[in-house]
Amino acid sequence: MSRALAGRSRDVPALVAAARDGDARAVARLLSLVEDADDCRPAIAAALTPFAGTAAVIGLTGSPGVGKSTLTSALVGAYRRRGERVGVLAVDPSSPYSGGAILGDRVRMQDHATDSGVFIRSMSSRGHLGGLSAAAPQAVRVLEGAGCTVVLVETVGVGQAEVEVASLADTTLVLVAPGMGDSIQAVKAGILEVADVFVVNKADRDGADATVRDLRGMLALGDSTVDRWKPPVVRTVAAAGTGVDEVVDAIAEHRAWLAEHDTLRLRRERRAAAEVESLALGLLRARVHAIPDPHSLTTLAGAVAAGQLDPFTAAETLVAALPR
Amino acid sequence: MSRALAGRSRDVPALVAAARDGDARAVARLLSLVEDADDCRPAIAAALTPFAGTAAVIGLTGSPGVGKSTLTSALVGAYRRRGERVGVLAVDPSSPYSGGAILGDRVRMQDHATDSGVFIRSMSSRGHLGGLSAAAPQAVRVLEGAGCTVVLVETVGVGQAEVEVASLADTTLVLVAPGMGDSIQAVKAGILEVADVFVVNKADRDGADATVRDLRGMLALGDSTVDRWKPPVVRTVAAAGTGVDEVVDAIAEHRAWLAEHDTLRLRRERRAAAEVESLALGLLRARVHAIPDPHSLTTLAGAVAAGQLDPFTAAETLVAALPR
Repeated sequence: MSRALAGRSRDVPALVAAARDGDARAVARLLSLVEDADDCRPAIAAALTPFAGTAAVIGLTGSPGVGKSTLTSALVGAYRRRGERVGVLAVDPSSPYSGGAILGDRVRMQDHATDSGVFIRSMSSRGHLGGLSAAAPQAVRVLEGAGCTVVLVETVGVGQAEVEVASLADTTLVLVAPGMGDSIQAVKAGILEVADVFVVNKADRDGADATVRDLRGMLALGDSTVDRWKPPVVRTVAAAGTGVDEVVDAIAEHRAWLAEHDTLRLRRERRAAAEVESLALGLLRARVHAIPDPHSLTTLAGAVAAGQLDPFTAAETLVAALPR
Repeated sequence: MSRALAGRSRDVPALVAAARDGDARAVARLLSLVEDADDCRPAIAAALTPFAGTAAVIGLTGSPGVGKSTLTSALVGAYRRRGERVGVLAVDPSSPYSGGAILGDRVRMQDHATDSGVFIRSMSSRGHLGGLSAAAPQAVRVLEGAGCTVVLVETVGVGQAEVEVASLADTTLVLVAPGMGDSIQAVKAGILEVADVFVVNKADRDGADATVRDLRGMLALGDSTVDRWKPPVVRTVAAAGTGVDEVVDAIAEHRAWLAEHDTLRLRRERRAAAEVESLALGLLRARVHAIPDPHSLTTLAGAVAAGQLDPFTAAETLVAALPR
């Protein structure tokens, strides 16, 4: 470990103590360390372990344009009125190719910018050891360490990364809006299975009734196991604050159900397993990339691209070449 | 290897030979083996290595509802009229939780169902060794082995998995439609960097001009390196066939540019590296899951969920416990 990194790791206990006292700059610094400085994350994780699992983690997902940021902002207000301390993670899987995420619509959060009971942070998935599915849980722990009792995790779009992030939440809200593509296409993206609560936002628009009906129809076709949670469908006009209290109620009902069925513990164990697996594979990926020639990934991939080697043999060669 | 699997692996050379002759059932069988039977994939990959890289691989991505399936179907028709043999992979990252993808709108492809020069296949990402990024290239090789000169890879939604699949294509089309959320949100999902050609579909709708203008504005802000490809913005009404020939032309121009700049080879090497890495990590993941107690993933994850252990220490314990 370099001298600078050793110094940063030594700061961690002091930062965690300051974050516990609600020092926003300490929280921001810890989130930056979690996002940027892989070397500090083990120390942060160790310091935060006692506070892990203390917040209700609520995921929000849905296609671009359905109004996730607007609903997130409305939910922040609703939870603040209920006396909760609220953290917001806006997760942007973004591009693997370019630096930095463009988060122009974070302005929607500026209502809460001066509230000391709210921490807001954007995260991209770039460069994390183990990817987003490893970095996001760490950021949640930082917010729990800072005393947040509610953490809202908003993701961009619906896809594999979003499903991974949804698995981070105790309760996942899936937002849809009237006229944003037919329902079958929404199901295609696998959202039916991750949704604990459906929110039909922009419910003052034409087609809202049809969207609600389509969702209910799909839900009726789904798993009818008696013990299974039946996701409610809530209508909102988040920009006007309409229906937001009903969303808060639906989240509370889902949370009570989770506790009653011991499902919260199971979800959190599954989440921990995904996180540990991601971190372990991140460590292994780094080792794979460090393999020198003649068995380096670049050389083997070149042979595959040239049609001289099949990819399975290349992969087996790579694994066999891992340092012991 | 079980007796049944040994038998299946022995069938591979015969199946590949039949697929070379355009036998649709052999192609379908090989695609099934690639998708379902991990044990056969090395044999298939070895048999297909000589045909790897013989097709133009074209990716189509964009949010649900923009009309990807409709444009894919129109492009199939356009390439058939040009005498190409065409393969279509409809890739659905779908859910990690449930079996089988719902692909209701595959009906849009039924125009081509009786054409012996077209192979159409839906793929989900479930259960693949190394995930979608390893399975999809294999399916492309099967289609190349079957003599396809054009392979269209259509993905659902925009997210990490879609970006991975886009990296599989020589040319990636990103579809947008007027009124589907503002442009900044489209950029957030990282599509600007993966797009070689932008298609504004449903261009007869209100707002099409604004969408084209927004895209051009963003492109003007992007990387202005002289040697870089400048993605064109093409308008289509795919359902009416309008603009489809212009898309084909834009793809051809991009392909000529790739060849001129030796970028095709670089892209394919990068693609091979991603595939080999995915397969290697798939092999390593299987080993991680096979670690017995007391250092099993389940036990370590349970301790993390209970707040007794931090996830980094758990991951390091797991990696150290890998069998040598």
